[in-house]
Amino acid sequence: MARWEPGARERMVVAAVDLFTEQGYDATTVAQIADRAGVTKSTFFRHFPDKRELLVAGQQVLSRLLAEGIAEAPRTAGPLDAVAAGLGRASDAMGQLNRELGPRLKAAIAASAELQERDALKSVGMAAAMTSALQARGVPDPIAQLASELGVLAFKRGYSAWLAAEHDAEGGLAPYTAAALAELRAASASLS
Amino acid sequence: MARWEPGARERMVVAAVDLFTEQGYDATTVAQIADRAGVTKSTFFRHFPDKRELLVAGQQVLSRLLAEGIAEAPRTAGPLDAVAAGLGRASDAMGQLNRELGPRLKAAIAASAELQERDALKSVGMAAAMTSALQARGVPDPIAQLASELGVLAFKRGYSAWLAAEHDAEGGLAPYTAAALAELRAASASLS
Repeated sequence: MARWEPGARERMVVAAVDLFTEQGYDATTVAQIADRAGVTKSTFFRHFPDKRELLVAGQQVLSRLLAEGIAEAPRTAGPLDAVAAGLGRASDAMGQLNRELGPRLKAAIAASAELQERDALKSVGMAAAMTSALQARGVPDPIAQLASELGVLAFKRGYSAWLAAEHDAEGGLAPYTAAALAELRAASASLS
Repeated sequence: MARWEPGARERMVVAAVDLFTEQGYDATTVAQIADRAGVTKSTFFRHFPDKRELLVAGQQVLSRLLAEGIAEAPRTAGPLDAVAAGLGRASDAMGQLNRELGPRLKAAIAASAELQERDALKSVGMAAAMTSALQARGVPDPIAQLASELGVLAFKRGYSAWLAAEHDAEGGLAPYTAAALAELRAASASLS
């Protein structure tokens, strides 16, 4: 009797973040997460290899969207304009659930060395995806690598600003990552 | 009967990298590392909390040197010149042992998801140390953060170039990180 249903994945993520907040990451088991989400352990394992991956489950999707946005930017777009297109594509995929869970997720990561490591690797993965997509457009090294690092920074800074923007409760992430990238572009000009 | 002696730490690192290369990271135990290095397990644990930390043991030292170099750069130095001073200080601490072990260490990291995560967090730590040191000089955000990311990239790229420079077997790391930072500075100018 499979208990699979639409929304199970989201319910597991919410349950996990709640439990991590209540009792800590280390003390939380897959069985507890499944129970709180109203799914079986086998449903959990159909979605995630373990509890750690659950927290970074969006990584592959984000990396794919970043790369697609870069690939589909106009041929005349410069490296940072292509990165801006990738950020826009990825930002549009982040909905209110991400925003609502964001602060608790950040707290859970801050409280666990293991999650910090996994989160750091997530940034590496996003940068690598963007670098490959830029290189495929003919952007030479190290410009491709540098533009990707700006993209990762812009994503992180924009995401933090979005979580903090209480006056804009309904707004999406995209304007925040776009503003962060513009700010970093200006900073880059002032550095050189 | 303590078997502590000068060089024990280096012997443990060499033994660990050798064992990781021979049989993989997961299959290697602390007991095997201690045995190969000719020390007791308690000596191992006086130096390192576990086998994973052994591979990133230099991180705190590198972060401290980066921050010191930035703090002691001339007051008139711009953000990237201060980063260059930090890179110089940190690079000078990397000796022939680092160079000799580098390729095997890289291979061990590439073969282990756990080590990749730890290595990614190492970069985050280095960037944070540089950002704090730049902010203490009055460099505003996000310029401090961006300059630090350039510093981390320069360190990584310079380190890779150093490992690959077989024609310069006796040379130190510093010229390689300096050249990498200069290249990234030029790339930054072309981006904006």
